[in-house]
Order: sequence, then C-alpha cells, then structure tokens
Amino acid sequence: MKTKAFQEYYTEDFSHCYGCGTNNEFGHQLKTYWDGEETVSHFTPTPEHTALPGYVYGGLIASVIDCHSTGSGAAALHRELDESDRKETYPRCVTASLKVDYLKPTPIGCNLELRGKIKELIGRKVVVDVTLFAEEEICAKGEVIVVQIPDNWNPK
Amino acid sequence: MKTKAFQEYYTEDFSHCYGCGTNNEFGHQLKTYWDGEETVSHFTPTPEHTALPGYVYGGLIASVIDCHSTGSGAAALHRELDESDRKETYPRCVTASLKVDYLKPTPIGCNLELRGKIKELIGRKVVVDVTLFAEEEICAKGEVIVVQIPDNWNPK
Repeated sequence: MKTKAFQEYYTEDFSHCYGCGTNNEFGHQLKTYWDGEETVSHFTPTPEHTALPGYVYGGLIASVIDCHSTGSGAAALHRELDESDRKETYPRCVTASLKVDYLKPTPIGCNLELRGKIKELIGRKVVVDVTLFAEEEICAKGEVIVVQIPDNWNPK
Repeated sequence: MKTKAFQEYYTEDFSHCYGCGTNNEFGHQLKTYWDGEETVSHFTPTPEHTALPGYVYGGLIASVIDCHSTGSGAAALHRELDESDRKETYPRCVTASLKVDYLKPTPIGCNLELRGKIKELIGRKVVVDVTLFAEEEICAKGEVIVVQIPDNWNPK
C-alpha cells in the first residue's frame, strides 16, 4: 500500500494551500513523509522559478520550507495524541514565524530534498528545523514555528 | 514622466526573478519605489494564492517581503554611491537571511501594501525591516538581510 503524505490527511476544507494543498491545481502540491524521526519532502523547481539565471528564487525556498514545516507540525501533533483521540485526518497548522538562512545559491533543475526535525512540541505549538539540500549540498536552513488552529477556526 | 520601479533598474541578466523580474512573464513582477525614506510595494494576490480559504499562503508573503527587500537594498546601495560612481542601473542583491512573523491571517482579494525601512547599511550588506498591511491592518513583519553580489558574480 502506498504511504500517504501528511498533506493527504488534511480535511478537504484545508487542502487548498498553494504550497501543499492536494486540491490546488496551480500550486506546488508539496508532499511530506516520515523518515524515521525526520520528515522529508522532495520538490523540483521549474525554469520559471528562477532568481538569478541558474538558481532558485528565495520565495520558493521559503514556501517549501514553510509548507514542509506546517505538514511536519501536523504529523507530530497527530502522533502525540492518545490512540483514542486520534482521528483519521490530521490537525492543520499555520505558521507563526519563519526564518530562512540562504547559505548558498540553490541550483535550478535538480530535485531538492527537505529534511525536518521536530525541535520542540509544547501544547499546540511545534518548532521545526529544516535543512534544504540540492545535489547533497546544504543550500538553506529554516526554523519555523507553527501552531495548530482550533477546530472552530475563524480568524476574523 | 512615470517613476521607474527599483526592479526596472536591474540589468537584463538580473531581471528574471519569479518574484520581481520584469522579464519573468510567469512571476509576480513586484515593483518597489521610494516614498520619502521608506520603500513601498503593492501586490494583489489572486485566488490560487490561498492558504486556508480566504487567506494568503505564507510562501507568497515571504516571497513579496523577500523581493521588496532585495529591491530596497539595491536602491539604498545605489543612493549611497558618489554621483560619479553611480551607474544608470542598480546593483543586484541576494538574500542572506529572511525572517517573517505572521501576526494575523492575510485576507485574499485585497491589495497588500509593503513598507520597508533601511535599518542598517554596512559595506555591501543591507538590513531591511518590512511591514505588510492588508486593509490598513498589519498582517506580517519581516527582517531581511540582503547582500550586494559582486559584478563578476559566479556562485559555483
């Protein structure tokens, strides 16, 4: 049986995100999985995602680090629950804070790997450390604070 | 005479960025201007830029804050030069570090305003503070460190 990605466990209402929503036909549809205690996503930027010729623009790198982290946070929160409280769907997180250090230019045209570690999980808040690799070199690092939204979410 | 945006002063080679390149037909084509001592950009996200229904995804917010800052850095560096050293084109900056605090959900469908302040300029490095407004409310804040690339830029 094929392993489902974290984002495939979001409810229909919460599957529209441009970065990772399975229902957003225009978006990146990032998919994240457990790999032992780490979380992993892969993404291949396309030529329009250029910054300077040959390299990926910073906004895309921030976007995939962001969605990798909200997904990792959701999966970590789901895993923490007692089995009796665990639904089939995952909770949904939003980002409180995103920090990305661009360590070297990220080449375009190759498959990027994002690896996440759950640094902290307290209540509804999860801190995720992310490393982005291109051709086995570290190009960027992220630290992202995500927060589980309430079931009756209404931001107004 | 119409005021040119910072991004319209980049050389042709450096005008391909998805976030702000005037030559990227698929991208956001963000445009930034001086407004006194502040820098200002406007951008209207489209429906596919959704996070949760009704709100803008975090990756887009990070992207426009990023390109607003590289543009602001370029303009600030250009302004610092002695008149005799000042070319018609602007220098080009890349991002070393991007920090975004998402203070409240950013509604989709309205025109966003980004306002930047040059916090620090030392040598080739510029630190830009950015505030993102939607309908006059602050939705996100950014602190971005950008660095001017050398004229003979070759990251390999």
